[in-house]
Amino acid sequence: MKKFMNRAEDMVAEGLSGFVAAHDDLVAFGPDRKFVRRRALTPGKVAVISGGGAGHEPMHTGLVGTGMLDAACTGHIFTSPTPDQILAAIAECDTGGGAVLVVKNYDGDVMNFEMAAEMATARGHRVETVVVDDDVATTSSGRSSGRRGVAGTLVVERILGAAAEAGADLAALKALGIAAVDNTRTIGVALKGVTVPDTARQTFSLGPDEMEVGVGIHGEPGRSRQAFRRADELAELLCAEILDRAPFSKDQPFLLLVNGFGATPVAELYVAYDAIRRALRPRRLSIARSLVGTFVTSLDMAGLSVTLTGLGAGRQALWDSPVRTAALRWGM
Amino acid sequence: MKKFMNRAEDMVAEGLSGFVAAHDDLVAFGPDRKFVRRRALTPGKVAVISGGGAGHEPMHTGLVGTGMLDAACTGHIFTSPTPDQILAAIAECDTGGGAVLVVKNYDGDVMNFEMAAEMATARGHRVETVVVDDDVATTSSGRSSGRRGVAGTLVVERILGAAAEAGADLAALKALGIAAVDNTRTIGVALKGVTVPDTARQTFSLGPDEMEVGVGIHGEPGRSRQAFRRADELAELLCAEILDRAPFSKDQPFLLLVNGFGATPVAELYVAYDAIRRALRPRRLSIARSLVGTFVTSLDMAGLSVTLTGLGAGRQALWDSPVRTAALRWGM
Repeated sequence: MKKFMNRAEDMVAEGLSGFVAAHDDLVAFGPDRKFVRRRALTPGKVAVISGGGAGHEPMHTGLVGTGMLDAACTGHIFTSPTPDQILAAIAECDTGGGAVLVVKNYDGDVMNFEMAAEMATARGHRVETVVVDDDVATTSSGRSSGRRGVAGTLVVERILGAAAEAGADLAALKALGIAAVDNTRTIGVALKGVTVPDTARQTFSLGPDEMEVGVGIHGEPGRSRQAFRRADELAELLCAEILDRAPFSKDQPFLLLVNGFGATPVAELYVAYDAIRRALRPRRLSIARSLVGTFVTSLDMAGLSVTLTGLGAGRQALWDSPVRTAALRWGM
Repeated sequence: MKKFMNRAEDMVAEGLSGFVAAHDDLVAFGPDRKFVRRRALTPGKVAVISGGGAGHEPMHTGLVGTGMLDAACTGHIFTSPTPDQILAAIAECDTGGGAVLVVKNYDGDVMNFEMAAEMATARGHRVETVVVDDDVATTSSGRSSGRRGVAGTLVVERILGAAAEAGADLAALKALGIAAVDNTRTIGVALKGVTVPDTARQTFSLGPDEMEVGVGIHGEPGRSRQAFRRADELAELLCAEILDRAPFSKDQPFLLLVNGFGATPVAELYVAYDAIRRALRPRRLSIARSLVGTFVTSLDMAGLSVTLTGLGAGRQALWDSPVRTAALRWGM
């Protein structure tokens, strides 16, 4: 196994150390390095806090900054952060407005964030939780009851972060978060499984002409193994997977996110994006905003996911508002 | 060969089409899609134009925008753009101030950009050329006389783009470009070779415990094949490779760029960055700025390069000034 690392057990800590050093104009460690926070907090603003297992970089630490997260808590690889980490982030970042927790729908994450929310509430913090479950490939999985949370999490964090920056209160953010989740759906496809550093083993292995449709971001197997197809056919398949299962109105502007899983070349992401635009044309969706890049990863998995978010009900203006994080930055 | 594409011969055109569609707030195609340009040009400003073979995405099209390039010309994969493409970009983007061409040092690129410069000069344009040759692994290669141009090209484009935006004239940009090149050096290491879409063949193949040190960005073999090492040892090796051969003064602030080659996970780039910071500490270099990400690629090659640029003589302020491109964005 060739990975840029020293010992597998130090990989997460060293990666976080590198991340904070590289972006020390934006972020800083919290006490005991339990979380990564914005360098400067805004008194009275609702704190937007997220986190999850490591291995999805640049999410979530790369999304900490103005217009997005106040703090991100990172667990070991593919393992939820502890309630203690999350509680520490709430205690430090709640400057009077309370905290909204953005949680991907995995049993471990949901349990630990809930526990932290209860402990924080007992200490006098006002806390709301928004659970993201955008993956149309799952109705439930080994790791989750209901759909998994995947790349759409970035979109929900952006919309909530923007609204919090604009002064929305905790109740408004909770409602906005639910609406953003309801209007966001994702499907993923893998060409190569994940090699987990601790075990040096690949989670699933694909033949030279196979792809796995409906994969998650933890090396879970997908919903079906199929013959690999050229980009236009694959785009058709992925768009059908999302839109056949999407509960949201098609009569609103959309954000199209094409997200690389970690080992997918940038050149191919744009070819895929081009094919998906073609596949969406006869479906008469209005693509008002696009994001193409490597944002929500599964270590060295090759493949990509496609996310559609309806930007109606004011979400487009929130998406467009200034943001300044390591991974997403515009307007400032 | 599993790549997100339709036919290999259409991959570059479809990727460019996707790129322009995804970033149509920033860029547009020139006539006949010969180049990608900024949506809005600034009359009288010197045009900064670059380009090269496809396969290095997001460079160069991802670097078109305010504070960086006015236009980028893309050839077929690993193949120089034609003089005709470059001439068309000069003709469209020279709004009175002339044009500076930023060229990576490969014989094909240098020849075609020179030919375009001559043709443009004959038509009354004032043109200067800056050749980037930052790769310490080469004194010459099959593709170049002298050192190759690799990831440091991004840094030179940023510094020249910033100065052009601030109103520098053609002579000043030429001098600034030479100084930026003289103060920039890069070394690369690969863990896996490139699979070229046209041939479906890998350019070189490495064993499960081997790495190739001193690789270029076109699947050229490196200077030496070695046993893979843990991050701290590898960082030592790479820092020694650069600094033993660097002609620049160590007594200035530095930019440290850790650049993924296309299939390198973000998590590993930050671990590598952390190790390189550690390796630089006893060498007493002052790292004033950092950039970590996937910017100058070789399709699906796994590996990374390390670039150091001395930011003395006003280059730090130029680096920091606002920039708004698809791949690099801050301050606006």
